[in-house]
Amino acid sequence: MTEQREHERNNYNSDLLIKSLENEHIELFREEFLDMHPYDQAQFFTMLDKNVRAKVYLYLSPEEMAALFENIENEEEDYEDILSEMAPAYVADMLSEMYTDDAVDVLNELDKDQAVSYLTIMDNEAAQEIKELLHYEEYTAGSIMTTEFIAIEANQTVRSAMYILKKEAPEAETIYYIYVVDEEKKLVGVISLRDLIVADDDTMILEVMNDRVVSVSVSEDQEEVARLMRDYNFLAVPVVDFQDHLLGIITVDDIIDVMEEEASDDYSKLAGVSDMDRVDKGPFAAAKKRLPWLVILLFLGMLTASLIGRFEETLNQKAILAVFIPLIAGMAGNTGTQALAVAVRGIATGELDDGSKWKLIIREAGTGLITGATCGVLITIVVYFWHGDWFLGFLVGLSILITLIVATLAGSLVPLIMHKMKVDPAVASGPFITTINDIISILIYFGMATMFMSYLH
Amino acid sequence: MTEQREHERNNYNSDLLIKSLENEHIELFREEFLDMHPYDQAQFFTMLDKNVRAKVYLYLSPEEMAALFENIENEEEDYEDILSEMAPAYVADMLSEMYTDDAVDVLNELDKDQAVSYLTIMDNEAAQEIKELLHYEEYTAGSIMTTEFIAIEANQTVRSAMYILKKEAPEAETIYYIYVVDEEKKLVGVISLRDLIVADDDTMILEVMNDRVVSVSVSEDQEEVARLMRDYNFLAVPVVDFQDHLLGIITVDDIIDVMEEEASDDYSKLAGVSDMDRVDKGPFAAAKKRLPWLVILLFLGMLTASLIGRFEETLNQKAILAVFIPLIAGMAGNTGTQALAVAVRGIATGELDDGSKWKLIIREAGTGLITGATCGVLITIVVYFWHGDWFLGFLVGLSILITLIVATLAGSLVPLIMHKMKVDPAVASGPFITTINDIISILIYFGMATMFMSYLH
Repeated sequence: MTEQREHERNNYNSDLLIKSLENEHIELFREEFLDMHPYDQAQFFTMLDKNVRAKVYLYLSPEEMAALFENIENEEEDYEDILSEMAPAYVADMLSEMYTDDAVDVLNELDKDQAVSYLTIMDNEAAQEIKELLHYEEYTAGSIMTTEFIAIEANQTVRSAMYILKKEAPEAETIYYIYVVDEEKKLVGVISLRDLIVADDDTMILEVMNDRVVSVSVSEDQEEVARLMRDYNFLAVPVVDFQDHLLGIITVDDIIDVMEEEASDDYSKLAGVSDMDRVDKGPFAAAKKRLPWLVILLFLGMLTASLIGRFEETLNQKAILAVFIPLIAGMAGNTGTQALAVAVRGIATGELDDGSKWKLIIREAGTGLITGATCGVLITIVVYFWHGDWFLGFLVGLSILITLIVATLAGSLVPLIMHKMKVDPAVASGPFITTINDIISILIYFGMATMFMSYLH
Repeated sequence: MTEQREHERNNYNSDLLIKSLENEHIELFREEFLDMHPYDQAQFFTMLDKNVRAKVYLYLSPEEMAALFENIENEEEDYEDILSEMAPAYVADMLSEMYTDDAVDVLNELDKDQAVSYLTIMDNEAAQEIKELLHYEEYTAGSIMTTEFIAIEANQTVRSAMYILKKEAPEAETIYYIYVVDEEKKLVGVISLRDLIVADDDTMILEVMNDRVVSVSVSEDQEEVARLMRDYNFLAVPVVDFQDHLLGIITVDDIIDVMEEEASDDYSKLAGVSDMDRVDKGPFAAAKKRLPWLVILLFLGMLTASLIGRFEETLNQKAILAVFIPLIAGMAGNTGTQALAVAVRGIATGELDDGSKWKLIIREAGTGLITGATCGVLITIVVYFWHGDWFLGFLVGLSILITLIVATLAGSLVPLIMHKMKVDPAVASGPFITTINDIISILIYFGMATMFMSYLH
């Protein structure tokens, strides 16, 4: 945070900007402000008070505001709040000037009537493009693509392609890949600006373009798109329909956001938070996100309690048995969470396919055996020295051994089964598997204790 | 995985390649192979047998092999194994032709003597550049930067800059940002190829360049660099020393790898696996990574056991108390893991600074109060209907309330304290905080039970 702040501090003169706004020095403000990176502009803008922001809307054109607005995230500043400060016509113009994917992001966060009302007063062409993108399902390639790409036909020279490029550069989201299409707008090739620049001016595009163009389908999962761009080190990837018509592109900066989102999502699920709550939200907002999990786990915990209740007779005879309940249940939860994490990551990264699933299950059984045997022997020795009772030691040790094998297997099986059933395996969070394994471990421990009761001192 | 495979299948003709290798049709192989994306080349290469690979080394020049090798990851195929199949001179030439950051990645995975021996026979200039990069500490900007950037001086026209660009394009890792330096090689500006292309040929670079260039220090943490590139949507960022001398650049594809690495690292730590084991490793490799955690947790669990042992007297009188141990301990673990995840993410994303730390702690206390009260009331009612004992219900309910407040606080305090002590807060994994919270919850539960013993039926 500190480092980041320093960067921001070096990048613009906040005092000068605030003074120029206070004294209404429009020219001075614009000169300094428009020289800043849009991210810095957004950082400066979001820390201003509402009444000062009103001046900013007067000093900046909707187009200038669009560049800034693309750098504001809804999670940080509520879009609805900011837009309500602007005149509706200003908002509509600003949305028209934004890259379509960013405009779609903004509109998706507004309530539906509000979004429709902006679309109605918006420039017709822009509104049309945005409406088309709004139709794509969330988390698909279509929902994150933009329509501002450069497409040319193959049958022209590098010189004429460069001419088109220069003309379209101000509008395009990236000019570093130029896509080649046929008369029906079907994608047939790609050429990077790098290749275009080193090519001879009179060469035909057909000769220098790459016709093995990698594309994604508009309905492709965004995580899959991210994996593809990571593997191929692409800066952008074209999106096509089932007939190979070029519909849009996805740029690497959007993929970085997808990766962050997905990583944070997996992480929160492992921790049993339905959705990561921001640290600046209040306790009620935080409790609302966590309570559903906690209540489910509470009822699962009662199941555990009622299970132990069935062994009350055993417990009445040997209260010492209760001493090891949290140890055994805890170890089951720990090993289950480890196995779960490995399986969930394997599924997420695509490493695990049908063939390697069985290999993983056998591997995990082996891992459970090794860790179980190690921990079992350790605990047997410790319990003996502590209570002077070899039999109690063996009972706890053997319970740990069996528990660790079963719990490790459960940790890998649960996500695999969920994946098979087309449920997101990450939903099988750490706390969930921990509670399941609590139950398993208690059944094993008390089952064995009841069976061998007579041998205990 | 399936989708990904389909892409690969579409992108090259595997049968044709294998046949051409079998029949030693060098020309046919080279024509098809060199037309492929280096990632596809690597995918094809790594599935070949050792004896077939020997042919590939004969058919491809070290330079051609370099592009392929940059797309192989050590975690998937051991670098040492592959390199041992090649002649040392071939390896040295190949390393010289690779981008320096990739060559450094390879050498870092070899044993030191081996790396030195390759450096000795390598082209002198390349070896020198690699050696310099090898000095930078792991996880810093210096360790992931590359030296193949384009730098020009400000006092020339756009035309002459384009001339330099075309000449240097084949060597540079990216040509989309051109960095502007003064006579002492200090970074003074940056211009994107996009701006260069739309600028008039006779304009001076000084006029069109951006002099608010954002750079990172060579010792900057790689995670910080990733955050900066994400915020600013950069495709590359320049790396400078403390006197602003331009040393290298970091490109967005390397940052994607960093982000993946860090996300996977945080995830495994939350799950209590020191380092994510690949699903195709054997049970001993997996057990080796998990056992250290499990053994630590086993001993922490024994602490819990010995704590309960101190309450054996209470337990002997009221065996029913044991029934609720896993429930209360489990809930403490669950809420702790949730709070931990939120705090660790907050620290990682830089959202949490010194001021907001206190706000978070107060918020978490409030969240614990709300979730604790809800779960406490629920369990009190359930226990009453189950055992017909209001007092037992109150005891368990009140324990849950206090436990959830304390455990939620512990979950957020532990990572904050670790961060303050400059320990990676992610080390405070889910299983660790779960076990700590087991201990806390048992103290609360049995402490209260012992105090109010006489009221129990």
